[in-house]
Amino acid sequence: MLSKHLQSELSDWMQSGNDEPVILSSRIRLARNLENFVHPMMFSEGDAERVIECVGNVLRLDYDEIKMQDISAQERLMLVAKHLMSKELLKNNDGAVYINDDESESIMVNEEDHIRVQVLGRDLSLQELYKRAQVIDKRLDEHLMISFDEHYGYLTTCPTNIGTGLRASVMLHLPGLSIMNRMNRIAQTINRFGFTIRGIYGEGTQALGHIYQVSNQLTLGKDEVSIIEDLQQVVEQIIEEELNMRKRMNNYDHIETIDRIYRSLGILKYSRKISVEEASLRLSEVKLGIDMGIIDIPFRFNELMVAIQAPFLNTVYDSDVTVEEKRSEMLRTHL
Amino acid sequence: MLSKHLQSELSDWMQSGNDEPVILSSRIRLARNLENFVHPMMFSEGDAERVIECVGNVLRLDYDEIKMQDISAQERLMLVAKHLMSKELLKNNDGAVYINDDESESIMVNEEDHIRVQVLGRDLSLQELYKRAQVIDKRLDEHLMISFDEHYGYLTTCPTNIGTGLRASVMLHLPGLSIMNRMNRIAQTINRFGFTIRGIYGEGTQALGHIYQVSNQLTLGKDEVSIIEDLQQVVEQIIEEELNMRKRMNNYDHIETIDRIYRSLGILKYSRKISVEEASLRLSEVKLGIDMGIIDIPFRFNELMVAIQAPFLNTVYDSDVTVEEKRSEMLRTHL
Repeated sequence: MLSKHLQSELSDWMQSGNDEPVILSSRIRLARNLENFVHPMMFSEGDAERVIECVGNVLRLDYDEIKMQDISAQERLMLVAKHLMSKELLKNNDGAVYINDDESESIMVNEEDHIRVQVLGRDLSLQELYKRAQVIDKRLDEHLMISFDEHYGYLTTCPTNIGTGLRASVMLHLPGLSIMNRMNRIAQTINRFGFTIRGIYGEGTQALGHIYQVSNQLTLGKDEVSIIEDLQQVVEQIIEEELNMRKRMNNYDHIETIDRIYRSLGILKYSRKISVEEASLRLSEVKLGIDMGIIDIPFRFNELMVAIQAPFLNTVYDSDVTVEEKRSEMLRTHL
Repeated sequence: MLSKHLQSELSDWMQSGNDEPVILSSRIRLARNLENFVHPMMFSEGDAERVIECVGNVLRLDYDEIKMQDISAQERLMLVAKHLMSKELLKNNDGAVYINDDESESIMVNEEDHIRVQVLGRDLSLQELYKRAQVIDKRLDEHLMISFDEHYGYLTTCPTNIGTGLRASVMLHLPGLSIMNRMNRIAQTINRFGFTIRGIYGEGTQALGHIYQVSNQLTLGKDEVSIIEDLQQVVEQIIEEELNMRKRMNNYDHIETIDRIYRSLGILKYSRKISVEEASLRLSEVKLGIDMGIIDIPFRFNELMVAIQAPFLNTVYDSDVTVEEKRSEMLRTHL
């Protein structure tokens, strides 16, 4: 059970249904804290263990418990690559994460807050994911003393999370808007409505694989349902703009677009070493080609974007070849 | 007969035997002039036709006669791409060229000199090609009054050709030396010995397809046999350096080299539009891969380097797609 989370680059929840154009996944995250403990950043000796013990007692029966102290740095990186935990836990030996069987639910303990509940899904089913998060939330609430203020709502370590403690986010594949340099304008517009968009994977200006995450900035002053409804509207608007941009590429830069897409496929099939940045870009362009109906091959973008991450490449193969060679070999085998 | 020269990108002489590494072809050229005519640049009305008539009478029986005035601009470009005539004849309606069946022999009339005899071969068989050029030369000499001075030798329009009138040249594929930036040093060295090296196809600094032509600079003060022997030695030296450079690439940049070669193959197989510059580079790298034993596919570099030239692409396909698209289509079909 446990080894599955740490070996396969596939999360079972990713495998249901087909890859959709544009929407890669949706996520609901709830931040919760325990009343009778200080915030993790102020922990004394033994506090972290006690919090894990409390939360673990509630979840252990239905979730696999992974304590950071029990796994290697590489295994932690895998969980980050699969979005099962945040980067903040990488260097935190006091943390733990509880993961359900298909990896669509994970509960981090002793990250920034005592508890962070996360539910992942493939499509824009935020309301449904929120209902599942509520089930977990209710169960925690029944067994634990959760910090809650009648006036402010849920109390969290960082003030931006106070209130609902909810962050709803959607991961989008936006090659059209990226290639046509429309991302800055989009970011400015949605910012004004209290939402934020940022590239995932990769810290720099360029989003790896043209993948962006849209999420709400504030959790206070709005209820959960309207946060989710508003995000959903914003996302639908972005999807429409992305699809318009693809139509434009198809009408006005037809050969350039087809050439770009086929070259990416050729390079993925023929290269003998490839960086994670280039692989992401090439995979993104192949997915664009499939979604635009230009090429037709079996292809799982979500999985490959995880599989090209360095920690998975080290596990699958063992020899003295470099990560760039292993990545290239893995991609050739897949395509 | 005649249409063959103007349609197929294949010259029969190219097809004998396999592609060799490094040596692409050898060429012997003799410059000759008629005593009773002024040089072509000083022709009066009717002179050009009379020269063609004189030379044609000697050659017409065994060679196909192509007068510039009878063929289109595109057809002239084809003959240039196949090295059957020089660029100087492109805009010269007074010229003609006589070509034998396998296109290994061509005699230009009214280029810079009245007569330029050229014999082409696949390998470093300069002495043999020279013998064949002598046969043609002797035949012309038997029927025509050739300008010859006891002291200077053959008299030509340009002083650099006076003497033997011989230019011996070898076309070499030098990707190792080019990629490793050794070409400038090589050029300087061989210059000191009276030889010159220049990129063919493409006017700029970069030789298209890493193809270079080495030839003698002077034709005076040395006899034909020693010009050819010296050139042969210089060429053998360059080949050795090229092969050393390839060993080095194999030993010290093994993965980089393999990756570069496979990516080129991938792009040739997958692109949907490609410039002549890029196509030349990619073809060159694939040939390097074959010659280094990295890939094993049927491949005719000499032919493809001609086939990617614009005039051939226009002939083979006719529709409103661009030359870059046609080139890409042709390459995908071939590979």
